[in-house]
Amino acid sequence: MNTNGATQLLLDMGACARNAATALRAAPTEVKNAALLAAADSIAAGREEILAANARDVAAAEKNGLSSAMIDRLRLDGGRFEDVVKAIRAVAALPDPVGEIIEAWERPNSLKIERVRVPIGVIAIIYESRPNVTTDAAALCLKSGNAAILRGGAEAFETSKALHRCFVEGVKARGLPAGAVQFVPTTDRAAVGDILGGLGGAIDLIIPRGGKSLVARVQKEARAPVLGHLEGVCHVYVDGAADLEKAVAIVVNAKMRRTGVCGAAESLLIDRACLASFWPKIAAALREAGCEIRADAEIQKIDPAAKPASEDDFRTEYLDAIISAAAVDGVAGAVRHIAEYGTGHTDAIVTEDKAAAAWFLAHVDSAIVIHNASTQFADGGEFGLGAEIGIATGRLHARGPVGVRELTTYKNVVRGDGQTRV
Amino acid sequence: MNTNGATQLLLDMGACARNAATALRAAPTEVKNAALLAAADSIAAGREEILAANARDVAAAEKNGLSSAMIDRLRLDGGRFEDVVKAIRAVAALPDPVGEIIEAWERPNSLKIERVRVPIGVIAIIYESRPNVTTDAAALCLKSGNAAILRGGAEAFETSKALHRCFVEGVKARGLPAGAVQFVPTTDRAAVGDILGGLGGAIDLIIPRGGKSLVARVQKEARAPVLGHLEGVCHVYVDGAADLEKAVAIVVNAKMRRTGVCGAAESLLIDRACLASFWPKIAAALREAGCEIRADAEIQKIDPAAKPASEDDFRTEYLDAIISAAAVDGVAGAVRHIAEYGTGHTDAIVTEDKAAAAWFLAHVDSAIVIHNASTQFADGGEFGLGAEIGIATGRLHARGPVGVRELTTYKNVVRGDGQTRV
Repeated sequence: MNTNGATQLLLDMGACARNAATALRAAPTEVKNAALLAAADSIAAGREEILAANARDVAAAEKNGLSSAMIDRLRLDGGRFEDVVKAIRAVAALPDPVGEIIEAWERPNSLKIERVRVPIGVIAIIYESRPNVTTDAAALCLKSGNAAILRGGAEAFETSKALHRCFVEGVKARGLPAGAVQFVPTTDRAAVGDILGGLGGAIDLIIPRGGKSLVARVQKEARAPVLGHLEGVCHVYVDGAADLEKAVAIVVNAKMRRTGVCGAAESLLIDRACLASFWPKIAAALREAGCEIRADAEIQKIDPAAKPASEDDFRTEYLDAIISAAAVDGVAGAVRHIAEYGTGHTDAIVTEDKAAAAWFLAHVDSAIVIHNASTQFADGGEFGLGAEIGIATGRLHARGPVGVRELTTYKNVVRGDGQTRV
Repeated sequence: MNTNGATQLLLDMGACARNAATALRAAPTEVKNAALLAAADSIAAGREEILAANARDVAAAEKNGLSSAMIDRLRLDGGRFEDVVKAIRAVAALPDPVGEIIEAWERPNSLKIERVRVPIGVIAIIYESRPNVTTDAAALCLKSGNAAILRGGAEAFETSKALHRCFVEGVKARGLPAGAVQFVPTTDRAAVGDILGGLGGAIDLIIPRGGKSLVARVQKEARAPVLGHLEGVCHVYVDGAADLEKAVAIVVNAKMRRTGVCGAAESLLIDRACLASFWPKIAAALREAGCEIRADAEIQKIDPAAKPASEDDFRTEYLDAIISAAAVDGVAGAVRHIAEYGTGHTDAIVTEDKAAAAWFLAHVDSAIVIHNASTQFADGGEFGLGAEIGIATGRLHARGPVGVRELTTYKNVVRGDGQTRV
């Protein structure tokens, strides 16, 4: 088997995960839920240790001059620590997807066929600075019967390590193997290469969550199936037939509610037909909320305060209080712009014209397409899936929010009574 | 974009397919069906040309000393030519999966969410000697709104080329682009490498259909998502509590009905508890049907006529009238053997013991698991999916028979009335 030169540490983690996956596949719902609740309790009890680790990560980030958006994503203080614990308990409360009969039918020859949900197996998650991904991913994988290998970003390393240590204590306390959830105990970037290489066949699925540099690396190096949670260059298109009040509210919310989330809008497209009449109100509202606007030449003509947008700006996931803006030729122009610059994540149209909305929803080929609502609804919780591991931006297996159901696959179970094929 | 050194010919095909995919995504059901019927008519009209091409392929195969099973897979005479035409018409008659609403729900904030089936995009199929895959794959991709790039095996090159030429004539006659279905016009094996490299991002999904050498190459080289249709080392396990008559009928059918299909049984596992009593009848029936038996030491003791099976035999997809055989310790022993030697395709148990059957169906982690029926039911037609492109042996997106529905993905369509996120 091709091990792609993976280090022994990672190969051992792969083998350990493979064994744990066999145990998890057969684990009853009650055992998995008890383990999740024990993990939540263990993390709650470890609050001081975890917040101290987080303070070390934040201090290092400030020292290293990370952007304010990055540092915000790192923080576990305020109510966020409690949210981490709550999220694990919420996953315990979700229905178990494993064993669910997706479809069942009978053939004329009396063969009974079922498609039954089963775990995927071993899932490796490669993520960046948000420490709550450690516990969200651990909980979602465990609930869906998958063994997890977590590779967290260097910025949140201390926090993630502490969260993981407490989580696993709870898992072990309920009799599930420690290999069910493993955390890569090094910030060496070679470990990412090992994981992308598939650990000699030990990994069934890689979930990368990150920006441009991770996208490029995954495309070049991945040797195992990938469920990409990659860049979100999300658009809001304001159509000429939009209700201006809705448009203002949606644009500001999509961009500014939280700028560090992948569903945040990064680019504003506006119909030429309403540029002169709508722009002043939209731009004023964005600026009042603290947003910088980088616009194309046409918009700059009517709004000299807007900075010029380069070609690169339209491909940039700022994750910050900046938005690029372009004038387009109606809904067809918006669809063309998004096909050229979008990343297949989430794109929205604001319009009262039903035909324009239908055209946009049909022709924008992104994981999530939205009519008259904020792109920040791109979220498993907002979709009603319970917690999510992120928003899948690829085309296969699952698109959009990935919750416990999306972390399963199925097998075909056929029951006969001696049938042979003619 | 990383083009992995793909040749210009293949890159051009990728770009052409990408354009065609945009047209196909929006093509109405009637247009796709009309194109399929025209393709079927065009092939029917090209019967002489196609059968002459097939005769050239078969003659070359005989000259090159290919196995009888390989030559059988190549042949398009007898009723098989008519079956090819019928299969295309059958795909035209299937419901269109594109636009199907898989799920729909409403959130407490009145957002309406739908998961809607959409085409995957550009699909490349790499297959071996069976020429009907050319038309099956072309028809299934077109029906599901995907552009297809077909890379057929060298043995059936002339036949596939002729089938493709006729197929595309029909497609063009109904106004769909020729790029909807392209056939790689060279037997150069470098083209497979180009396709596995993803053609600079032009390919959304690679479907490889083949044996050991293709498996290895895909694992090493694939840079785009893969829906593997790879080796089928399928098992039939005869339990101590089996009905002997059913067992004999199922084993003989699973192995000998057609030996060249991927769902043919390659390995017979028999419970130690019934070895002495069941073996003579099962072995006699297999031999009477013309099957060679390669058995482990334990079986050879009671059946000296059986040839010895090597470790390799248990990992071999014979696709011929040969079966490997091993005695195992009941259903748990069978599950362990299949976990070690199986390829995740199709495995069956023969037993009247419901608990043993349930254990087998739950613990064998293959795409298709069967109780008391032949493994040769591993087939899209037999499953009631209509035609199939093959049996997926991977773990993601789709497992088992892949028909038009399995060749689609979905997007999330969200409809609001001005909602912003709190």
